Amino acid sequence: MTAKVAILGASGYTGAELVRLIATHEGLEIAALSADRKAGMDMADVFPFLRHLTLPKLQKIDEIDFTGIDLCFCALPHATTQQVVSALPRNLRIVDLSADFRLRDPAAYERWYGQPHAALDLQAEAVYGLTEFYRDEIAKARLVAGTGCNAATGQYALRPLISKGCIDLDDILIDLKAGVSGAGRSLKENLLHAELSGGTHSYSAGGKHRHLGEFDQEFSAIAGRPVLVQFTPHLLPMNRGILATVYVKGDPKVVHETLATAYAAEPFLKVLPFGALPSTRDIAASNYCHIGVTGDRIPGRTVVIAVLDNLTKGSSGQAIQNANLMLGLPETQGLLLAPVFP
Amino acid sequence: MTAKVAILGASGYTGAELVRLIATHEGLEIAALSADRKAGMDMADVFPFLRHLTLPKLQKIDEIDFTGIDLCFCALPHATTQQVVSALPRNLRIVDLSADFRLRDPAAYERWYGQPHAALDLQAEAVYGLTEFYRDEIAKARLVAGTGCNAATGQYALRPLISKGCIDLDDILIDLKAGVSGAGRSLKENLLHAELSGGTHSYSAGGKHRHLGEFDQEFSAIAGRPVLVQFTPHLLPMNRGILATVYVKGDPKVVHETLATAYAAEPFLKVLPFGALPSTRDIAASNYCHIGVTGDRIPGRTVVIAVLDNLTKGSSGQAIQNANLMLGLPETQGLLLAPVFP
Amino acid sequence: MTAKVAILGASGYTGAELVRLIATHEGLEIAALSADRKAGMDMADVFPFLRHLTLPKLQKIDEIDFTGIDLCFCALPHATTQQVVSALPRNLRIVDLSADFRLRDPAAYERWYGQPHAALDLQAEAVYGLTEFYRDEIAKARLVAGTGCNAATGQYALRPLISKGCIDLDDILIDLKAGVSGAGRSLKENLLHAELSGGTHSYSAGGKHRHLGEFDQEFSAIAGRPVLVQFTPHLLPMNRGILATVYVKGDPKVVHETLATAYAAEPFLKVLPFGALPSTRDIAASNYCHIGVTGDRIPGRTVVIAVLDNLTKGSSGQAIQNANLMLGLPETQGLLLAPVFP
Amino acid sequence: MTAKVAILGASGYTGAELVRLIATHEGLEIAALSADRKAGMDMADVFPFLRHLTLPKLQKIDEIDFTGIDLCFCALPHATTQQVVSALPRNLRIVDLSADFRLRDPAAYERWYGQPHAALDLQAEAVYGLTEFYRDEIAKARLVAGTGCNAATGQYALRPLISKGCIDLDDILIDLKAGVSGAGRSLKENLLHAELSGGTHSYSAGGKHRHLGEFDQEFSAIAGRPVLVQFTPHLLPMNRGILATVYVKGDPKVVHETLATAYAAEPFLKVLPFGALPSTRDIAASNYCHIGVTGDRIPGRTVVIAVLDNLTKGSSGQAIQNANLMLGLPETQGLLLAPVFP
Repeated sequence: MTAKVAILGASGYTGAELVRLIATHEGLEIAALSADRKAGMDMADVFPFLRHLTLPKLQKIDEIDFTGIDLCFCALPHATTQQVVSALPRNLRIVDLSADFRLRDPAAYERWYGQPHAALDLQAEAVYGLTEFYRDEIAKARLVAGTGCNAATGQYALRPLISKGCIDLDDILIDLKAGVSGAGRSLKENLLHAELSGGTHSYSAGGKHRHLGEFDQEFSAIAGRPVLVQFTPHLLPMNRGILATVYVKGDPKVVHETLATAYAAEPFLKVLPFGALPSTRDIAASNYCHIGVTGDRIPGRTVVIAVLDNLTKGSSGQAIQNANLMLGLPETQGLLLAPVFP
Repeated sequence: MTAKVAILGASGYTGAELVRLIATHEGLEIAALSADRKAGMDMADVFPFLRHLTLPKLQKIDEIDFTGIDLCFCALPHATTQQVVSALPRNLRIVDLSADFRLRDPAAYERWYGQPHAALDLQAEAVYGLTEFYRDEIAKARLVAGTGCNAATGQYALRPLISKGCIDLDDILIDLKAGVSGAGRSLKENLLHAELSGGTHSYSAGGKHRHLGEFDQEFSAIAGRPVLVQFTPHLLPMNRGILATVYVKGDPKVVHETLATAYAAEPFLKVLPFGALPSTRDIAASNYCHIGVTGDRIPGRTVVIAVLDNLTKGSSGQAIQNANLMLGLPETQGLLLAPVFP
Repeated sequence: MTAKVAILGASGYTGAELVRLIATHEGLEIAALSADRKAGMDMADVFPFLRHLTLPKLQKIDEIDFTGIDLCFCALPHATTQQVVSALPRNLRIVDLSADFRLRDPAAYERWYGQPHAALDLQAEAVYGLTEFYRDEIAKARLVAGTGCNAATGQYALRPLISKGCIDLDDILIDLKAGVSGAGRSLKENLLHAELSGGTHSYSAGGKHRHLGEFDQEFSAIAGRPVLVQFTPHLLPMNRGILATVYVKGDPKVVHETLATAYAAEPFLKVLPFGALPSTRDIAASNYCHIGVTGDRIPGRTVVIAVLDNLTKGSSGQAIQNANLMLGLPETQGLLLAPVFP
Repeated sequence: MTAKVAILGASGYTGAELVRLIATHEGLEIAALSADRKAGMDMADVFPFLRHLTLPKLQKIDEIDFTGIDLCFCALPHATTQQVVSALPRNLRIVDLSADFRLRDPAAYERWYGQPHAALDLQAEAVYGLTEFYRDEIAKARLVAGTGCNAATGQYALRPLISKGCIDLDDILIDLKAGVSGAGRSLKENLLHAELSGGTHSYSAGGKHRHLGEFDQEFSAIAGRPVLVQFTPHLLPMNRGILATVYVKGDPKVVHETLATAYAAEPFLKVLPFGALPSTRDIAASNYCHIGVTGDRIPGRTVVIAVLDNLTKGSSGQAIQNANLMLGLPETQGLLLAPVFP
């Protein structure tokens, strides 16, 4: 038995990644694809790498007949998503990949996204989509809010440490290195190959990046008190992958043991032997997350490094993992593809 | 039912690519892995991107018990392969990825590889592994010789044109652009990131590349007369992918029609609409080959462009496609993974 | 003594490259910079890599006072250039980097650029800017039309061969590999890092690229009869550099000798020893052009490979070389910067 | 007047970078080049990008006649340098680019480099080569020890802050991102293009990197008490450039003001306006260092980001800047080349 799914926003990178993963997922079947400005086109003309697949033509959202569709992936831009999802059938299961439903507190949403939320009822209903920590809620949810890709990476490194209380909550620093596909298919000069390749820079430094809203919400909820982390992202000349170097104050061996124990049974989260350092190359195009821990020469200081693929585990793979839960399919179905190297 | 396979030479890129593909191939199971200098190590230590898999430890070849193994992939360096395969059990099915058994004529082998062949009986037995053109022979073969990755790309563009006689056989030119993984894991200065990235150069120009031996053998056999092509490879700052720009003298529409007809039923060979130009990005990490055809402004001249991934369709994917045939499995099993983009 | 120059279109890559080169050119001083949409900005805000220089603010063209300016570099888009240059003072020396004045025949211009030329008098006056072949005319010219970067590369490989009559004029094929900065700062999806890196494709295949207009004009003029070449460009995942693989029918040694003799005294054109193959890495960010020649295994066929940096020798370096001649400065002044490697 | 220089170790990247820079340095002339294993070869055969220069042939060091040579650049591997320099004429001025003479304390040397120092007298004599902070000593020195490239980057961000006492000395964290040319021309699998491109990883995490020896020595000397920083380097898929993200506890505006004041008169150190973030792309292939400062959202925490080109300002450019001082030439001579972008 296969479930029928629709993908809204199929002309972006996360939409295309959903199609790539579903292509060999035996439990899901793509019944509809939307892309407003490219409605009427074949997916093969928008993404020739999908040429070998038989896919429905791209439609406008309001042309889609949702009858018989079991679940809808929503890979639309932030802000427009609220309006679109509000207009969808209320019985339709939705996995949203935008930022619109990640923050439970409307005030926090407004602060980080610069405008009031336009669908407060949906926001209240949405379950935060970090699968390993919200499994039961996700399995029962109608609307799941996919996490930010950077937010997921940082949380995999930190959540068990915060919940076990083995680090100083007032001195957590996340220095993050991200590939460029996380910026989407945006036409900006600094994303051109000529300008991005061969160099690196920081952006949104100093606590301005929106994914901080997720860190604040989640870490504070776990700790039962406000937790504010430092977070400085950098853009790297690579397409896929995020590496988060997380600096904490806590005992290195305890930190390692805590993470290894927390994730021992997780199919996609792999804690490396103590001292081993992960590489984004080793999880590219896969749903795996590798985590390494080492001690600093200064006693009591620990470095945790987590890597994942922003388009897979950081968004579209996570979305399918959540959809599997919502549809009663095996959680790992369609997601066991090995990373691609070199 | 799954067939048990061994992979000899598992510490190179084609060996690792075999493991990557077999990881989600439901008809194959890896029973043994060899890597002489790394014997005793875990595959996860040689290739951390395979860390999530449960795999046998790396062994020396002579430590492997071939009892119960249905098929052996041999991903060893050229020349040593002959000796290794000579010593393997004579009833073992073998898919070889080296150059050792590609050339049927011992004199041609000696000319292109600079030494006499050391296993003439095996060479005589081997079937050339370009799946789409040797299906029946491969299905019955004990020893299949995987093609050169450049040789495969050029042949997909040209074989139907030569067999249908729609191009001038005395004026065929292949200008080829190759990614660096085709050079293997060799430690050479010009393969370092610092020296390879950001630029391009030609190598083996002027008819010196060994894959010419395959072109000569195959094209001459099809034509029933000697056919010598020009072939100039270039190394590009990319890891995977080959693009062959093939210049022929013949009618563009006839050329396109000939290729489209020849490959209409092929699961992995996709001829684009006339005038559309393929990109290596659209077949990365997959077993697909895209072929485009366009006419030049000079009447009677045609440009055929074929792209494939050297590690997949050009070697390890091809090897599995052949193994599927040899083992009576569906030809496409395990090979329908979508390309990875971006 | 230094000459005062203006640069129109300073917010594009060729404009920035002019500033980079003039920064250490002791005979030129930048007196004005234009960039219509960015007028009022500091150059350091448009191109932070030029932050260390003291430069005039960006202006609109009609705000510039051309009194006292000895020469104007015009790095504007095609088509608008005609109008802008028409409105400039008639006594101002101009080196134009656009395509607008490259084709002497108005009909050829209209054919390749899709519209009639709007400044026929200027077109008639313009001298083609391939320095080594138009030195005397350039030294006396008021308006010099910089060549296409691909057109320059192909001509360096071929002009002496055509003028000496040592190759078959009816069978010349240029397979060209170009870095992405040649496409300028255009915001197009296929120029994004996420889409361009890691792969290659051909564009304008089949005789559609506009630089063919230059090849036709120049080669036919040298030969005294129509010469039509085949020309297929490819886009590579690198920022700077063009490599033209030129296939000719002619004796390899004669071809090499002809080129070596023709360029023996040229400061920027280096013919490698017979058989040596050039790399774009060896001329990056410099005004040098390297040319290699080798014979094919098929007698009478020769491969000539020329490499240059599209932004330097292919446009802005060439422009300064021409400006030096026009201003009576040493031709090589400011242009002897060594390539950058790695 | 030009000074005659020798370059020992001319077949590595820093050696080649010295030649590149000296090529347009009007005060220096290359009189001898050494490369032991490549003795007898032309530099153009080792580094074809230098083909246009007239250079002495590569020699073994003991073949060089140092008579008349004013200064010797030593770009040899660590450890062998001590022996080589010990055997050089005692009146010869030397700028060393290795790590051998950077640490004044023999015990510190032995701890970080794993063996006792073999030339203690030279080590005692050597002046640390961070030009802006040791100008007077360098001008009078016979032997100058070039700094580590990472060490230089971190120090430019931190020295004035430590000396002015405006940050917490017990909580300094340097997260560093480095291009691959810093690893030299070493033949290692992880430096191959196929393995390095498209991803990132940390190395020597946890306080193991040898450049910590320099940080400890210098920062403690400035502070007059032990200062231990955290330092985690990462390898990025780019050839040139280092970006150091330095996290300090101190007032952002005071930090910015302190750096801006300290470097106001420096020709190569550029402090950006408060809040502006530097990019390695903007200093590539140049001797400039850009420094940005921003405040974190957590009061009292500041992020300082410094970028420089490891081969230029981080080693060979620094070496020439020091040589200029030692030879009585203008400090900036030959070093004002603009960065290369894109």
